[in-house]
Amino acid sequence: MNHKIHDVGVAKQIGTYSDAIEVAPDMRWLYTAGTPGLAADGTVPADITGQAEIAWQHIMAMLKKADMGVHDLVKITQYLLNANDIPAYAKVRSRYLGDARPASMLMIVPGLVWPNMLVEIEAVAAKR
Amino acid sequence: MNHKIHDVGVAKQIGTYSDAIEVAPDMRWLYTAGTPGLAADGTVPADITGQAEIAWQHIMAMLKKADMGVHDLVKITQYLLNANDIPAYAKVRSRYLGDARPASMLMIVPGLVWPNMLVEIEAVAAKR
Amino acid sequence: MNHKIHDVGVAKQIGTYSDAIEVAPDMRWLYTAGTPGLAADGTVPADITGQAEIAWQHIMAMLKKADMGVHDLVKITQYLLNANDIPAYAKVRSRYLGDARPASMLMIVPGLVWPNMLVEIEAVAAKR
Repeated sequence: MNHKIHDVGVAKQIGTYSDAIEVAPDMRWLYTAGTPGLAADGTVPADITGQAEIAWQHIMAMLKKADMGVHDLVKITQYLLNANDIPAYAKVRSRYLGDARPASMLMIVPGLVWPNMLVEIEAVAAKR
Repeated sequence: MNHKIHDVGVAKQIGTYSDAIEVAPDMRWLYTAGTPGLAADGTVPADITGQAEIAWQHIMAMLKKADMGVHDLVKITQYLLNANDIPAYAKVRSRYLGDARPASMLMIVPGLVWPNMLVEIEAVAAKR
Repeated sequence: MNHKIHDVGVAKQIGTYSDAIEVAPDMRWLYTAGTPGLAADGTVPADITGQAEIAWQHIMAMLKKADMGVHDLVKITQYLLNANDIPAYAKVRSRYLGDARPASMLMIVPGLVWPNMLVEIEAVAAKR
């Protein structure tokens, strides 16, 4: 990670993220919108794995446009419609994050902006 | 917008917001609380349009107190109780945002802090 | 508070928080993960008071590791499973926050990362 990690023993019991991330002054910041698995051609895959894959590709593309990468991530927030989708979602996320460990939040919500969306991801990243 | 926009083709399919916003260093930051359509006299309108109107007036007032405006917005997060309210809510939002395009998140939640609240809005803004 | 408060008359009708917080430039920032009431020994208390207590202890520990305190808090976001738990949760929060008044958001969600979690707390703090 390109930021300072402050762990207190919670995250390590739940997943591969950090309890808290400290960001130094004088950084550029990137805030993404809530990002669903909506492809460039307007399609949304029917399953969580397909949607998570496209959503993470979008997050990677936004980081790259800001000349940032996964180790610049400070915080990710993940909105899922179904708790049963957590394991499949987490598998996709791991593939994109590698050993990066942003602070994370995952919650179940009853609905997102379109009824067919199963997941949205938000990211906050910072880099000098 | 007073910040750099990084679009990846998702937001333009959904609404009038940006996929990601990059904020330069050395900015002042404004974080609002989750802001409902609660009027100064303690009343909450019964319908989504009335609540959204008051909530956005509050957001504008907070921006103004910080000597900021809608083009300084980085991110807005919108919590609605009913997916059916999205079109009416979006109409009010457009009137306040004009051509400003912050990164955005909209989710449906089963409840907010008071049972009669249909919407809350959070904003993050930054300005030198 | 160590940050500038911009109140517009909403928060004071609801609870002991600020409508908006302005943060000066050149600060270090701390972002916590969504933090549940999960103890170091892997247990999660059955009730909201027990979970809120442990979650707030974790938030305090993360602030301390970053050489920050409750008056450096900018924003807290609180996810509860049950609206009925709000009063008991708020009582614990008050004990930890004292007279600190970060901007706040509280929402009800249908689920968190583990099914037995009744509350999660996120914090954003900043200090020079």
